[in-house]
Amino acid sequence: MTPYEIIAKKRDGHTCSPEEINWLINAYTEGALPDYQMAAWLMAAFIRGLNDEEKHAITRAMLHSGIVADLSDIPGIKVDKHSTGGVGDKVSIILAPVVAAAGVPVPMISGRGLGHTGGTLDKLESIPGFKTDYDFENYRRIIRETGVCLIGQTKEIAPADKKIYALRDVTATVESIPLISASIMSKKLAEGIDALVLDVKCGSGAFMKEPERAEELARSLIGIGEAAGKTTVAYMTNMDEPLGRKVGNWLEIEECIDALNGNGPADLMEVTHHLCGAMIWLGGKARDAEEGRAISREMIHSGKAMKKFLEIVEAQQGNTEFIRHPERYPKARYQREVTATATGWVNAIDTMQIGIAGVELGAGRLKQEDTLDMKAGLIIHKKIGDKVQSGEKLATLLADNEARLDKAAPRVQNAYTIRDETVEPPTLILKYLDKNT
Amino acid sequence: MTPYEIIAKKRDGHTCSPEEINWLINAYTEGALPDYQMAAWLMAAFIRGLNDEEKHAITRAMLHSGIVADLSDIPGIKVDKHSTGGVGDKVSIILAPVVAAAGVPVPMISGRGLGHTGGTLDKLESIPGFKTDYDFENYRRIIRETGVCLIGQTKEIAPADKKIYALRDVTATVESIPLISASIMSKKLAEGIDALVLDVKCGSGAFMKEPERAEELARSLIGIGEAAGKTTVAYMTNMDEPLGRKVGNWLEIEECIDALNGNGPADLMEVTHHLCGAMIWLGGKARDAEEGRAISREMIHSGKAMKKFLEIVEAQQGNTEFIRHPERYPKARYQREVTATATGWVNAIDTMQIGIAGVELGAGRLKQEDTLDMKAGLIIHKKIGDKVQSGEKLATLLADNEARLDKAAPRVQNAYTIRDETVEPPTLILKYLDKNT
Repeated sequence: MTPYEIIAKKRDGHTCSPEEINWLINAYTEGALPDYQMAAWLMAAFIRGLNDEEKHAITRAMLHSGIVADLSDIPGIKVDKHSTGGVGDKVSIILAPVVAAAGVPVPMISGRGLGHTGGTLDKLESIPGFKTDYDFENYRRIIRETGVCLIGQTKEIAPADKKIYALRDVTATVESIPLISASIMSKKLAEGIDALVLDVKCGSGAFMKEPERAEELARSLIGIGEAAGKTTVAYMTNMDEPLGRKVGNWLEIEECIDALNGNGPADLMEVTHHLCGAMIWLGGKARDAEEGRAISREMIHSGKAMKKFLEIVEAQQGNTEFIRHPERYPKARYQREVTATATGWVNAIDTMQIGIAGVELGAGRLKQEDTLDMKAGLIIHKKIGDKVQSGEKLATLLADNEARLDKAAPRVQNAYTIRDETVEPPTLILKYLDKNT
Repeated sequence: MTPYEIIAKKRDGHTCSPEEINWLINAYTEGALPDYQMAAWLMAAFIRGLNDEEKHAITRAMLHSGIVADLSDIPGIKVDKHSTGGVGDKVSIILAPVVAAAGVPVPMISGRGLGHTGGTLDKLESIPGFKTDYDFENYRRIIRETGVCLIGQTKEIAPADKKIYALRDVTATVESIPLISASIMSKKLAEGIDALVLDVKCGSGAFMKEPERAEELARSLIGIGEAAGKTTVAYMTNMDEPLGRKVGNWLEIEECIDALNGNGPADLMEVTHHLCGAMIWLGGKARDAEEGRAISREMIHSGKAMKKFLEIVEAQQGNTEFIRHPERYPKARYQREVTATATGWVNAIDTMQIGIAGVELGAGRLKQEDTLDMKAGLIIHKKIGDKVQSGEKLATLLADNEARLDKAAPRVQNAYTIRDETVEPPTLILKYLDKNT
C-alpha cells in the first residue's frame, strides 16, 4: 500500500478500502503524507465520488484523529442539532435552552461565521463575558450542571478534519457531498451525542440551492450518523429569505430573547419548534415529534426556556444583565434605511446577498483575522409575499462606520425583487427524512 | 483570476484559457503557486482531459520557461527523432550519424533510463570519456562542426516541465496523453529543430500497450509539433519484443557498432532506416521517405555513417579506441544462460519483464541515485517465431554480481512463452502518421 497506489485507485474510479483511507488520513494528519498527495487524492475523490463505505471510513478516521467526548456518566439521551447554515439562522440559541428545559441534555459544538452565513459562537460572544472555549473536562461539567453547553471546535476535536478542511479550502475540493458529510459528522460524533437532528437548508441563502442537492446531503448525513449507531433525522427547511427579521450577532441574540419571551417571528418559531420537537422526541421526553413540538411551545410559554437560557449564560460566564435588559446594550453609531423603489409585492429576496451585506456591515469576516462589529447587521421589515409601497422601508442597516453602510445598502436594495403580483410566502418545512424514508 | 478559480474550472470539466494556463505554469515554476494547488489542478486535468488549445498552451508555457536554442545560423533543415521508449531501443545512436552523414543536421536532446527502458545518454556514457552535459553554446558549436550533438536535458531547458514532471510522478498523474505530449514536445521544441520524426512504440515493452492509445499519443504529439510550426511525422512501431539482440548500455553500443559496420540485426535496421529515411526526406536531402531510406542504407554501406560516428565520439570527448576495437572493452565478471524448458516456437516475450531484468542486472536504475553497471545486460538468442529445443539457450545474462543473475534469470525465463505452434514475427512498422492522415 503506497500513497501512489491509493491515489491512482481513486483517480481511476475504484473504491479505496477502509484500511487505505485510514492510512491516508492518519499519515496526512501526522505530517507523513505531503499536502500535494492529499490534494491529488481529494481532487480524484471530488470528481470520481466516494461510496458509503469510503465515506464512513473517512468519517471514522477523522473522528478518531481526536478525542471523542464520553458523556455516559451524564443521565439521559444526549441529542444535538446541526444546521447546514443560512442567513439569520439563530435557531440553536433558542433551541438549546428549550430542549434542555424539557430534560434532554444538549452537547453542542458550534462553528464561527463561514462565508455569507453567521456563526452561533460569534453570536453568543456578543453577550459580554460569554465563553465558548472550554476544554472537554469543563464541557462535561457544564452539561452535567446545566443540561447544555455550547462550545467551539477545540484542537482536541477531529484535528484531521481541521487540517483536511484547510487544504480543501485552497484546492477547490470543498463542495463534495461525501466530503462535506464526513467533515460535519466527524465533529458531531465527537460531541458524545446519542442522537442528532439535522436542519438541511435549501434555497437562495443556503450552500445547497437546489432541493435535490440538499436532499442528497441530508441522506448522506443520515447514512453516516446511523452507521455510527446514532439515530439521525433531518428536516429540509427553506432558506429563500432570512430566518426571522434580524441578521447580525447581537441583533440575533435580541431576537432570541424575544423568542424565548414568547414574541418570536412566526417563521423562526416554526423551524425552531420542529427541530426542538424532534430532539425532545429522540431524547425520550415525547412519544413523537408532534408531542415534542407541543412540549417545545410549552417550554417557552411557561418561561422555563428563558430561565434555562439565563442559567446557560451564567454557566458560561456571560453577563445576564443584557439578557434581562437588552435595551441597555450599546447601539450601533449609524443606521440607514433601504426603501422600496416600486409598489407591489416582495417576490424574491436574494438571501446570499443579504448575508454578504451583513458581512460588509461588520457582522461577519472577510478574512479569518477580521474583528466583528457585534452591533452591526440588518433588520428585515419586508419578507416574501409582503405588500410594499414605493418609498416604504424594506430593511434597516446598522453599523459603526458609514462607509460600510454605503457599500451594503445598494446590495440589499438589489437583493429585493418587487413585482406587481401577489406571491405566497415560502413553505418552511420542506421535508422530513430519516433512515426509513 | 485566482488559482482557486482555475482549479475549479478544470475540476468541473471546463476549458482553461491560454492566459490561465500560462499564469498557472509560470506561478508554479517560480514557486508562487504551492505544490498542493498544482497537484489538484493536475489531477483534475488528468481525469477531465485537456483539449488541443489547453495542451498547446501548456507546451508553450513549459517551453518558454527555459531557453530555446536558436540554430538559425547553422545551414540546413534541422531534424530530430523522438522515441516514446522501449527495450533494446538503440536507434538514436545509429540514426544520428546516418542522418548527419546524409547532410541533415541533428540537434538531439536525449534522456536517461526511465523505468524498464534504457536511456540514450546512459548508453553513450558507457563509451569512456563521452560527455553529454554541454551547455547551449557548446551544443551549437558541436552541431556546427559535426552536424550532430547528443546532449541531456540541461537546467536551461524547460525547467517548468522538470518541476511538473517530478510532481506528476508522486501524485499519480503521469499517464495522461495530453500531459505526456506537452512534456515531450516542450523539450523537443527547445532543441532548435525545424522538423521532427516520432517513433511511437506499441506493445508489451512500450509505455502504450494498445495500438489505440499509441495512435492517440502519436496524433497528440503531431498536433503540438504542427501547431508550433514544425513538420512532425510519426511511425508507430512494434515493441512486443526487444529491438535487436542486445539490452544493456555497452552491449547496445556494441550492437550499434555492428549496425554501423553493416552487420545490424534485421528488425533494428528496418526501424532505423524508416526513421532515418523520413528525417533525410524532411531535411530536404531526398524527394520522399523511400528515397530517404535508400540514402540511409547507402550511408551505412559506404562507411560514411561509421566515419561520422567516430567524429561524434571524438567531438564529445569519448575514447574512439573501443569503437574501433569493441573486443577490448572490459567484460562482465559473470554470465548465465537462460534455456528453454520446452520444445516449440517462441510465441510471445513479455518485453516489460526483459526490461526489468535489465534493470535488475545493473543496466538501469531502481532509484535515481543508483550507479549503472555499463557491462551488464542481456543477449537475446531467441525472438518471436523462432523454433527452440528444450535446453536450448534463450538469452545470456551478464553482470558483475552473481546475486543479480539469480534474481534476473527466472524473470527472463518467465518472460518467454513457448508453444507448440508456429507464429509469425511481429510486423515492425505498424503505421505512418502525419498531419494529413
